[in-house]
Amino acid sequence: MIKLPNLFFGIKEDKYLIFDEHETVHFKTVRKKESDIIECTDGKGYYYKVKITQIGKKKSFGEILESKYIENNEKTILNLFAPASRWERLRWLIEKSVELGVDNIYITKTAFSNRDYKDKVEKINMVIRDSAKQCVRFHFPNVDFINFKNIQNYATKNTYFLDFNGQKLPANIASDVSIIVGPEGGFSKEELDFLSSNFNAIRLGNKILRFETAAFVALSYFAIALNKI
Amino acid sequence: MIKLPNLFFGIKEDKYLIFDEHETVHFKTVRKKESDIIECTDGKGYYYKVKITQIGKKKSFGEILESKYIENNEKTILNLFAPASRWERLRWLIEKSVELGVDNIYITKTAFSNRDYKDKVEKINMVIRDSAKQCVRFHFPNVDFINFKNIQNYATKNTYFLDFNGQKLPANIASDVSIIVGPEGGFSKEELDFLSSNFNAIRLGNKILRFETAAFVALSYFAIALNKI
Repeated sequence: MIKLPNLFFGIKEDKYLIFDEHETVHFKTVRKKESDIIECTDGKGYYYKVKITQIGKKKSFGEILESKYIENNEKTILNLFAPASRWERLRWLIEKSVELGVDNIYITKTAFSNRDYKDKVEKINMVIRDSAKQCVRFHFPNVDFINFKNIQNYATKNTYFLDFNGQKLPANIASDVSIIVGPEGGFSKEELDFLSSNFNAIRLGNKILRFETAAFVALSYFAIALNKI
Repeated sequence: MIKLPNLFFGIKEDKYLIFDEHETVHFKTVRKKESDIIECTDGKGYYYKVKITQIGKKKSFGEILESKYIENNEKTILNLFAPASRWERLRWLIEKSVELGVDNIYITKTAFSNRDYKDKVEKINMVIRDSAKQCVRFHFPNVDFINFKNIQNYATKNTYFLDFNGQKLPANIASDVSIIVGPEGGFSKEELDFLSSNFNAIRLGNKILRFETAAFVALSYFAIALNKI
C-alpha cells in the first residue's frame, strides 16, 4: 500500500520551526509525539527535517536537523485569475490550483463577482497550505486580490480568457500562461470588450461547464503542457 | 448577465412528467408555480417542455407540451473506473465526470478501496442528476458497481490506468477511451501486474496528485480530445 508522506508546515526562527495551532492539530491527528522526526516546509521552497521538541495546546516547536532549498526548476509561470465568487467553489478552485502547480492566484473582482475576500486571507492561506502539504509542494503559490481593471498589470505573454466565442485550445505552449475565468454570471459587456481587445479568447468546447470546472479543465490542460504536474 | 437555464428532471408517464420530492424542492427554490412552463429531461435523451399542473409536498406533476429526442451525436465513449473510496471524494469525482461528459462510471472495488456503495445508489443518482441538470445534459451517464477482476468486461479499445511508471499522455486519440484510477492507497501488487499485462499505463506528470484530481486531469484531457465537452 502506498503511504503518502506527511508534510508539515512551520515558520523558521533561528534553528527552530514554530508550528501554529492548525499544525499542532495535525500532529495530534497523525499521532506525532515529542522527539519524533518529521518532514516540513516553510512554503517558500525549503525542506526541513525536524525533531519535535514540544507539542503544546496551540503551538508546537521543533528543532531543525537538516534543511535544504528545493529549486523551483520550472521554467514557466502559470497564473490563474479566479473570480471572487461563491466561497465554496472558489475554495475548491484554490485547492485544486495548488495541486496543478499554479504560481499565482489572483482573486479578481468583476462586475458580477464583486465579493471581498480580503478578510478571508487567513482562510485562503490555510486552504493553500493544506493542499500543498497533501501534494508535497515546497513552493506555495502567491495569492493576491485585484480588481478587474488591473488585470493587465499581472497578465503574462500568453493570457487567455474563457469564452464560448473563443478559439480552440492552443496546441503548443512554451512560455508563461495566464488564464482568466469569469464568474457564474459571466463577464459584463464592458469587461468582454476589454478582454477581447487585450487577450486571446479560448473555448474548451461547446457545452456548459460550471465556472470552476472550466477553470480546472483549462488549468490542467496548460499544467500538462508546461510540465507543472 | 448570463442566465443559466433551469433544467428539471422528471419521469414520463403517458402525457405527464412526474417529479419527485427532490425536484419539488427545486421548484420551490427557484419559485416555480403551477401553470409555469419549464424545461425538463428524463436523463435518457429526451427534452420536454412541460406545464406544471400540480406542486405537492412530496411530488409534483406536469403536462408535456412538447418533447424531442436529443441525439447523442458523440462518436466515442469515455468511461471511468473510479475506486470505491472515500465518499466525499468519490462524490466530487462523480459530479465532475458528469460535467466532462463521461458515458459510464464504474465504481470499482479494489484491494485498497473495497467499500460497498450499492446502498448509496440513490444518493449517487442524485449527484448525477443534479450535475447533469446544471450543465444541461440530456443523457445521464450509466453507473455500475464492479469488482476489479471484472474490469476487462467493461474495458474499451484504449484503456489506460494511471501510474507513475507509465508513458506520457497519448497525443492522438480518436476512439473509445477508458480510464482506470486507483484509490489513495494505490493498486496492490497483483492488481498492478494484471493492469500492466492488459492495459496501457499513463502518467500525467511527476508530481503527487490526489486520486480524484488525477482522475479529473486525465478525464478532462480525453474529454477535450474526444469533444466530450
